[in-house]
Amino acid sequence: MSETIKGIAASSGIAIAKAFKLENPDFTIERKTSTNVEAEQLKLEKALETSKEELKVIQEKAEKEMGEDKAAIFAAHLLVLSDPELINAVKDKISSDKLNAESAMDDVSSMFISMFESMDNEYMKERAADIRDVSQRVLGHLLGIQTASLAAIDEEVVIIGEDLTPSDTAQLNRNYVKGFATDIGGRTSHSAIMSRSLEIPAVVGTKEATTKIEAGTVVIVDGLDGIVIVDPTEEQVSEYKTKLATFEAQKKEWEKLVAEKTVSEDGQHVELAANIGTPDDLDGVINNGAEGIGLYRTEFIYMGRNELPSEEEQFEAYKTVVERMAGKPVVIRTLDIGGDKELPYLDLPKEMNPFLGYRAIRLCLEEQEIFRTQLRALLRASEYGNLKIMFPMIATIEELRQAKEILNEEKGSLLANGVKVSDSIEVGMMVEIPSTAAMADIFAKEVDFFSIGTNDLIQYTMAADRMNEQVSYLYQPYNPAVLRLINSVITAAHQEGKWAGMCGEMAGDELAIPILLGLGLDEFSMSATSILPARTQIKNLSKQQMQTIAKEALTLATATEVETLVKNKVLK
Amino acid sequence: MSETIKGIAASSGIAIAKAFKLENPDFTIERKTSTNVEAEQLKLEKALETSKEELKVIQEKAEKEMGEDKAAIFAAHLLVLSDPELINAVKDKISSDKLNAESAMDDVSSMFISMFESMDNEYMKERAADIRDVSQRVLGHLLGIQTASLAAIDEEVVIIGEDLTPSDTAQLNRNYVKGFATDIGGRTSHSAIMSRSLEIPAVVGTKEATTKIEAGTVVIVDGLDGIVIVDPTEEQVSEYKTKLATFEAQKKEWEKLVAEKTVSEDGQHVELAANIGTPDDLDGVINNGAEGIGLYRTEFIYMGRNELPSEEEQFEAYKTVVERMAGKPVVIRTLDIGGDKELPYLDLPKEMNPFLGYRAIRLCLEEQEIFRTQLRALLRASEYGNLKIMFPMIATIEELRQAKEILNEEKGSLLANGVKVSDSIEVGMMVEIPSTAAMADIFAKEVDFFSIGTNDLIQYTMAADRMNEQVSYLYQPYNPAVLRLINSVITAAHQEGKWAGMCGEMAGDELAIPILLGLGLDEFSMSATSILPARTQIKNLSKQQMQTIAKEALTLATATEVETLVKNKVLK
Repeated sequence: MSETIKGIAASSGIAIAKAFKLENPDFTIERKTSTNVEAEQLKLEKALETSKEELKVIQEKAEKEMGEDKAAIFAAHLLVLSDPELINAVKDKISSDKLNAESAMDDVSSMFISMFESMDNEYMKERAADIRDVSQRVLGHLLGIQTASLAAIDEEVVIIGEDLTPSDTAQLNRNYVKGFATDIGGRTSHSAIMSRSLEIPAVVGTKEATTKIEAGTVVIVDGLDGIVIVDPTEEQVSEYKTKLATFEAQKKEWEKLVAEKTVSEDGQHVELAANIGTPDDLDGVINNGAEGIGLYRTEFIYMGRNELPSEEEQFEAYKTVVERMAGKPVVIRTLDIGGDKELPYLDLPKEMNPFLGYRAIRLCLEEQEIFRTQLRALLRASEYGNLKIMFPMIATIEELRQAKEILNEEKGSLLANGVKVSDSIEVGMMVEIPSTAAMADIFAKEVDFFSIGTNDLIQYTMAADRMNEQVSYLYQPYNPAVLRLINSVITAAHQEGKWAGMCGEMAGDELAIPILLGLGLDEFSMSATSILPARTQIKNLSKQQMQTIAKEALTLATATEVETLVKNKVLK
Repeated sequence: MSETIKGIAASSGIAIAKAFKLENPDFTIERKTSTNVEAEQLKLEKALETSKEELKVIQEKAEKEMGEDKAAIFAAHLLVLSDPELINAVKDKISSDKLNAESAMDDVSSMFISMFESMDNEYMKERAADIRDVSQRVLGHLLGIQTASLAAIDEEVVIIGEDLTPSDTAQLNRNYVKGFATDIGGRTSHSAIMSRSLEIPAVVGTKEATTKIEAGTVVIVDGLDGIVIVDPTEEQVSEYKTKLATFEAQKKEWEKLVAEKTVSEDGQHVELAANIGTPDDLDGVINNGAEGIGLYRTEFIYMGRNELPSEEEQFEAYKTVVERMAGKPVVIRTLDIGGDKELPYLDLPKEMNPFLGYRAIRLCLEEQEIFRTQLRALLRASEYGNLKIMFPMIATIEELRQAKEILNEEKGSLLANGVKVSDSIEVGMMVEIPSTAAMADIFAKEVDFFSIGTNDLIQYTMAADRMNEQVSYLYQPYNPAVLRLINSVITAAHQEGKWAGMCGEMAGDELAIPILLGLGLDEFSMSATSILPARTQIKNLSKQQMQTIAKEALTLATATEVETLVKNKVLK
């Protein structure tokens, strides 16, 4: 009997194949006190060594297939294996309690996991997941358990598991793994992000995939609508084959626009740019025909390491990006750390409300050496392409002025030292704090451009943490309050002859694009894979008609009314 | 040699007297393992009993002198003494480790304190302070240490201490204690709040009062400017006596206006109302000549207890307030719990950003029984005076509509059961989320009034947690962005013939009042002690002139420019 399970669409596409169940191996541990402490210590050492070797192999594979930043997690795992706090605690436990190595490992890792998990902090919670992944690996070796090797899969399958760990994902063979479905996770969980990066259709957060699906059953994973169909009927299979064919055909349509500019039906040009995290993302940007980079998040250079990146290292990264973009605009955002993004080597304060805390430009204006190093790297890289600098989390005009002054000081001292710096660098700011939207007319006089960061702007405007499930219904991109703020930012920019872009998720959203086009947004920056669908959509929209729609949207009372308006008058 | 120490002005007024140093007693604990477990258990029991009796006496005294809500902390302390988790842990430690009672008490309480302190949560941190205060008391009895009794002071003194615990404050004899100064704390720390409620001049957060001041030295505590002068010269003493006389004379001037309405120089009336937490605050409200209550925070009824308050209990509290206000308007805000305000008996989720989380109306629309009980109590109390209902943390019009619908349902069912309900209850909302300020024209059509909650509105508009010291510089009431939002709220209200009030700290601020008057604010709600100074100020302001000033403020770029404008053109 066919059965349909609902989940969250994590990576688009459709997969039809037999289920391969990722079982959690039986890690029953026999608790023994051993008199042979030395033998147990040796057993531990060996298991640690084997685990390290395995991880290094996985890390290399991941670097090749998924890029350096995605592979960084395995560097973190290797660090766990060398963490004296953890490893010495296991060794101590073996010595003092005369425990066998597996019980000691299990005790200590469980303690660390529950400690990190209980912390009110996403970064620490991720650390718990890392320790779990690593200690499972070590325990496997200690117990001599052969864990099901994903690398050994040699027929087309869809993977069904509670969740996929980073180690699992890295071992997937893309030739055989056609899709996956998990019980837990959301659109931004690790496995979801990985599935998009590997371009494998995936549905996460199904709650019951592992209980409802037997190994070997045929399964359809519909990553477009977030549905898993277990044991589909023949009609369903053929229906989904058609859906897949349509999807593939649509992708082909999109690809035709790779080399084209983005022009509306009535001949108005807007710029579709991409958001990137590292130079590794450039292939996707170029393959998807981005007209520029609207947001280069420089945080990744600072993450997954033990010390601040040097000026030279940063210069190389920025130079690579602007060079490969060959004259196309590249907006580089200065360090936006703090909030939910922490750096282990910067001793940032624990905060009660990190989203309303010490982060981004607030931190950079305080820790000026970090900021100045980055600015020097950016200024030096400006000679190699069309580089623009953007400051995040500006709340007051004083902050903007201070940031610009520091930038000018660094520029002056570089020039004085004979270093070449482009003399046409545009300097802009993120508009993501309501105060700057309310004061956009004032700010517009002192920047070259705005980029509206909707992810944060929405959460501050609605006073709702978008990560908090209990209030996530308030994260409303189509709320007329948000649209009014966006409208006043664009209007203010144009009044001063400046351009306004957007680099939040909203910029690539099919429902929002018609309104944003109508409001006069000049640049839309989104994930690379959204660019071609967006270009196709805009090609079929009249900007003039969208102006009427947008004007109407600003007078509505609710997000639902705005959605209905666009659905009724534009999408169909 | 006279020396000046700077701190934070916590409670206005000036005190000149000899220093009484509040020393932390020496709690050196001799760690002994005892074979007589029973004797140690008995010692513990006795110390617990004595502590409970002491606390009950203190609680009664506090209730009489400071009111029920301020005394609630001692109920919390008594709960600690009966907390089986803590007490049984001490008993277990005595039995299993054969420890003496004082070491066991010290070990266990230290463990609990550090556990609560490490939590990322203000409520839990307060619990740590409670446990510290209580366990010091028990340890004192176990060790037979006589702690310096504040109650025994029989000459005029100024108290100098690291901090004042709730127990300390409750024991102060107001006839002899003329003021105090502490090393730690801020304007909203427990000791600061207590000092204002006792009307004792106080300076907190001096960092060095205890190290720089010897017992017996004459000290001036200037609670107006946040200064402590140690060993003042004769000139200083006479200068401060003059300052005190001026302050007293000013207070007399203010008092003349107790029975008057608040009218500007050019004859325009505005309403000055008070913010209250419990019916106990009514004396202050009446003595200070409030024209109404602009914010009755109902949270206190729900706090410091083990279960939800009944409808009857709430009805009595609301009835008392509207009756005593004798026809003057009383705006009662429905439950605003969550965020930094937790209830131990409601199992609220731990949140990463509680200020952007599940709280106030968001929680009430979900936990409808709590909400409906409160609404019934409010509706029933409406017959006894001029009661208005206000919803907190509204972000979308749907929330407002749902809250109003629930209110109407409860009203309907009360009427159907023959219960009398006033038919002229005004229903309004807080404007404290930027989305509602941006959409004020839409909201104004569906409410009877707005009350601008500046504390939250500023923190969301600037994306800065006002409790977080590292970003507190961004908590800018005079930022033109904030003023523009306030302006659009007032304008929208007036366009629909509704009134707009304000119930944040800003409403009582001498620098903000001229601008708010100019923007057309109808009602200013503040702490009771600010009302007479504000009335005096407004009496001397021309509303028409303030309109010009306010208009100019809206065009400025920074908070500092606004401050300068008011200082130059209004205050002097």
